[in-house]
Amino acid sequence: MVMKVHGSVLSTAAMRVLIALNEKGLEFEFVPVDMRAGEHKKEHFLALNPFGQVPAFEDGDLKLFESRAITQYIAHVYEDKGTPLVCEGKPMATVVVWMEVEAHQFDPVGSKLQWELLLKPMFGMATDAAVVEENEAKLAKVLDIYEARLSQSKYLGCDCFTLADLHHLPILTNLMGTHVKKLFDARPKVSAWVADIMARPALAKVLAMRNQQ
Amino acid sequence: MVMKVHGSVLSTAAMRVLIALNEKGLEFEFVPVDMRAGEHKKEHFLALNPFGQVPAFEDGDLKLFESRAITQYIAHVYEDKGTPLVCEGKPMATVVVWMEVEAHQFDPVGSKLQWELLLKPMFGMATDAAVVEENEAKLAKVLDIYEARLSQSKYLGCDCFTLADLHHLPILTNLMGTHVKKLFDARPKVSAWVADIMARPALAKVLAMRNQQ
Repeated sequence: MVMKVHGSVLSTAAMRVLIALNEKGLEFEFVPVDMRAGEHKKEHFLALNPFGQVPAFEDGDLKLFESRAITQYIAHVYEDKGTPLVCEGKPMATVVVWMEVEAHQFDPVGSKLQWELLLKPMFGMATDAAVVEENEAKLAKVLDIYEARLSQSKYLGCDCFTLADLHHLPILTNLMGTHVKKLFDARPKVSAWVADIMARPALAKVLAMRNQQ
Repeated sequence: MVMKVHGSVLSTAAMRVLIALNEKGLEFEFVPVDMRAGEHKKEHFLALNPFGQVPAFEDGDLKLFESRAITQYIAHVYEDKGTPLVCEGKPMATVVVWMEVEAHQFDPVGSKLQWELLLKPMFGMATDAAVVEENEAKLAKVLDIYEARLSQSKYLGCDCFTLADLHHLPILTNLMGTHVKKLFDARPKVSAWVADIMARPALAKVLAMRNQQ
């Protein structure tokens, strides 16, 4: 039975899972969830994810949700297919540190900036300049630490592309279309890392799915 | 060389790591970081964690930070010692889902309530009633989903106590001393789960360390 991803290609969390599946070259079925019609809050979707958030994922009888739990499942269970997104032993401990950094340091700030600079204007809502300013300052501090880290290591987790990098891609792609792109461009190692990971064919495939919407 | 935890026993993130070490029955050295003196923002600490947050962790040459990355390291590398906090194969995928739920659904709400109801009064600051109300409503929704989950499974991740439960303990312990305790008490399965996990001897050992401060 082919794996199923239930979600919307506009969701950064769903994109995270779609990129991982494409890195692995795995066959899957994408089941669109009409979020504007509130389909993610209806009973059949809540049976897949009680929190009513996309994506939800099925691999045979196994049902999973939370995008980073799904990517970890894909990376570990399909370890021998496509790009190795995880590694073994002590180096993995450092990859996990940088996966946690993405989740707790980058994502909260990146999500707020994406909401203010991209999504609110799209929905005809006014951007809150104070929130933008506060989170730009926070992002700059995070990127200073990334700059130092990327001077020691080619990618965030280790010298290979892993989930620690991949998890950044959806929000990173969205932020590159806003003025905060300058914060990435101003840091040479960060800028090279962004160019490198944004050139992954797996991302291009997911963006092509999004553009077909 | 004995493992080292750098932190403060008042930090919920540091407590998370100390509980995991006690569950495993591992020997470790606790290195207090004087956060009131800003020691976590000074160079020697920033060399351990560039984000300047406790805890930081050392096991020989390996230096880690981010509490949930450290607990995962302890659980996987010392898998055969003490309580098994992780499991193998497909059941682990579901444990990871509930670890992500703790990080992205419980922690943001629990942290805000802890700040408003416990820490702000401790620092002589005024509690913001609107923030409390908003987050109480969010916590109630999260706990409704926990109640349903705990009707299917003894613990959140599977029928055994794992990191998915353990990661809740520090904030849970703090919230039990506030009026939001009633939200947990009102849900029978949640209430039994709270009583069960709060009775872990590893938590008692960490609270004893805290009380000696």
